[in-house]
Amino acid sequence: MATYKLTLEYDGTAYAGWQRQPDQPTVQAAIETALRCITQTEIPVIGSGRTDSGVHALGQVASFHSDRAMTTDEWTRALNALLPPDISALSTEEVADGFNARRWAVGKLYEYRILNRRTRSAHERQRAWHLWGGLHVEDMREGAALLTGRHDFSSFEGPQSDAENKVCDLRCLAVIQCGDIISVRLEADRFLKQMVRAIVGTLVEVGQGKRLPRDMKTILEAKDRRAAGYTAPPHGLYLVQVDY
Amino acid sequence: MATYKLTLEYDGTAYAGWQRQPDQPTVQAAIETALRCITQTEIPVIGSGRTDSGVHALGQVASFHSDRAMTTDEWTRALNALLPPDISALSTEEVADGFNARRWAVGKLYEYRILNRRTRSAHERQRAWHLWGGLHVEDMREGAALLTGRHDFSSFEGPQSDAENKVCDLRCLAVIQCGDIISVRLEADRFLKQMVRAIVGTLVEVGQGKRLPRDMKTILEAKDRRAAGYTAPPHGLYLVQVDY
Repeated sequence: MATYKLTLEYDGTAYAGWQRQPDQPTVQAAIETALRCITQTEIPVIGSGRTDSGVHALGQVASFHSDRAMTTDEWTRALNALLPPDISALSTEEVADGFNARRWAVGKLYEYRILNRRTRSAHERQRAWHLWGGLHVEDMREGAALLTGRHDFSSFEGPQSDAENKVCDLRCLAVIQCGDIISVRLEADRFLKQMVRAIVGTLVEVGQGKRLPRDMKTILEAKDRRAAGYTAPPHGLYLVQVDY
Repeated sequence: MATYKLTLEYDGTAYAGWQRQPDQPTVQAAIETALRCITQTEIPVIGSGRTDSGVHALGQVASFHSDRAMTTDEWTRALNALLPPDISALSTEEVADGFNARRWAVGKLYEYRILNRRTRSAHERQRAWHLWGGLHVEDMREGAALLTGRHDFSSFEGPQSDAENKVCDLRCLAVIQCGDIISVRLEADRFLKQMVRAIVGTLVEVGQGKRLPRDMKTILEAKDRRAAGYTAPPHGLYLVQVDY
């Protein structure tokens, strides 16, 4: 029995998120279906974490076990032949027994893309959050700087979370402007449920002048979701990389 | 009666090209439908040129006339409210009487995007031509250099064209590599039918080592479509800009 680490891209538009659910298309279910086609056996897949409905991935990682004699290139090719076009396998690696994509993850990188221009975009419609009003990017950066480091992020956690530990080490939170795209890149050892989207939504309120950059400190200290701002929509969010 | 110049983006995936056709969704028909909703009259729209089925636009230009009292911003907003999400109006400008988006065009810029990597991409599936084998980009550049300038481009013209004049001034033909994306940018006073896709398909054969860079000269001189190579698929092609 070998253990494999699978790196995946997906366009989350058509999926009710990563996690298998009855009666809804999910990324996990699509991968398990492809693995069943290849091996004629049920192979459960473990993702590095759940992504919400509509969220995309450039480098989601999943692990699975199989005793089927196939090279890693053969796994990648077989998966790409069977997966739907909006999910693709980037690579398959054989890893140590006991590797678990969720438990072994030591860090994740997310990117949130905002399209900041007057008119909506045909091309970015499911790939970025369109905000037509001006944003003070410098203020967003000043607010972001107050969030980096090791903190209790309860104020940025979505409802119905089952995480007991609310402390995350947000190693990097960068606001990058390139033309009319504003990208927010976040790197941490772990993220709470909807944490990226709550941080981005709150930083946008700073950019819109509805909050001051220094408010980010008060929000963190409140440890109360009601202190923070809007939850940014899922279609601007990309899971870029998972570190092990 | 005022004349308007409309600049448009579209994702061509769902459309049978620009030009209105019975029983098929086209970009022109979608715009004319939106204009009919706004004005309650039939307003014909003239595009700078036809784009093929599946081809995208970042800056297609169209012209129309209307006597409706609306500011240019109101036109843009009304169109974006009524157009489907995969077509968007970037701007509306009032222009001189007699302006005609097709006849007044003096130049166009196209970009063709190739995704050059081993595995297919969930995100680029309808946005770039996926070629998994290696491409010699330097050879493609050397071949491209032989095509620039004013030439008879009959060898790169698709079937059933009604153009009498086959001479185009290809001012710029650049092959740009950025990560695993190879972009071919072409600027000319005019383009023949499927000319960009035939040039890109032939340059790819050079990149694959199936043809030599210097063959591009022989192909041009043949003035025969059979001398050139493959027609690249439409979904990698973007009409970027039209000059007046």
